[in-house]
Amino acid sequence: MRQSVDLRHACRLVNHGPTVLVSAEHGGRRNLMAAAWSMPVEFTPPRIAVVIDKSTYTRELVLAAGTLALNIPCRALADVSYTVGSVSGRDDPGADKFACYGIGHFDGPALGLPLVEGCVAWMECRRIPEPHAEQAYDTFYVEVVSALADDRVFSAGRWSFRPDNAELHTLHHLGAGRFAVAAQTVQGRLLPARGRGT
Amino acid sequence: MRQSVDLRHACRLVNHGPTVLVSAEHGGRRNLMAAAWSMPVEFTPPRIAVVIDKSTYTRELVLAAGTLALNIPCRALADVSYTVGSVSGRDDPGADKFACYGIGHFDGPALGLPLVEGCVAWMECRRIPEPHAEQAYDTFYVEVVSALADDRVFSAGRWSFRPDNAELHTLHHLGAGRFAVAAQTVQGRLLPARGRGT
Repeated sequence: MRQSVDLRHACRLVNHGPTVLVSAEHGGRRNLMAAAWSMPVEFTPPRIAVVIDKSTYTRELVLAAGTLALNIPCRALADVSYTVGSVSGRDDPGADKFACYGIGHFDGPALGLPLVEGCVAWMECRRIPEPHAEQAYDTFYVEVVSALADDRVFSAGRWSFRPDNAELHTLHHLGAGRFAVAAQTVQGRLLPARGRGT
Repeated sequence: MRQSVDLRHACRLVNHGPTVLVSAEHGGRRNLMAAAWSMPVEFTPPRIAVVIDKSTYTRELVLAAGTLALNIPCRALADVSYTVGSVSGRDDPGADKFACYGIGHFDGPALGLPLVEGCVAWMECRRIPEPHAEQAYDTFYVEVVSALADDRVFSAGRWSFRPDNAELHTLHHLGAGRFAVAAQTVQGRLLPARGRGT
């Protein structure tokens, strides 16, 4: 079910703008937060930008460890996604959100980071230090070092959103816990040119 | 139909990761390209990061003018979105893509930038010069100075994707002209904490 994704296809996992869950671990402490704001910046090597607010406990762990994981939740995880995006691990750092909310996890293959059970894709990443972007725009640039996906919804380098895998469709945060679901697909066609403009 | 969007809600237009069309104009030349990679970085003031490749003609215009517009296409514009993302304005700068493909446009209210008819939201933006991010990651940081949306699908600061406005749902690029459509929504609920972890 979980299959390795070739790193040259890793950015396709977030190309369509899904909400991600950022997990991090350092010195025996771990945490998890939702991030609506991420985007690829390069296919090869696979690099992604993700916004991590200064108020978050996860940011502390990312800066200390130099690594983070991006987990891509699906429709079945809408409640988990909203919850870990609404509660700060800073409120009680003794109680990590995995334990508080009974969120299962497994170890990432490259870095051993805690990856969220029930998600549909996972990437372990190393921080590329960019202190100015981190400070001015809360933007962290990271490079993907391992990628996995659930082959019921992502295989051969492509997402496949179908009626028979509806619970596995990705979430796209609209605000206040409401998510758009990538529930249908459409194929664009190339238009013929009408000739030179003026 | 087109209504002004309060700037404090502008980032909600792209919060869920839609593909955008970047339009730009300088010295009587204009162009249009698709960008799958953008994200908000701050709600107030509304600031957005967008990846614009060095090979694009649009990038030249953005650097010269210091401004750009983000147009959010919908399902009805899947062919236009794929086409302007597949053809470079550099191939024949005398023929802008608006004219080549018969794409209608109107003038933006704040900066007069060419905005794409048939899209469901529009933002005029000023570039925040960040030469290092632009060079290293092709990432442009911009600040939104005007925002409009089609009130059949975005009103009171919120997207509303319903069966009766299916042609107006946003597009999320999967690759090779295939788009996921934000066709359904789901409301996440807050989970109860199970108590302290160990």
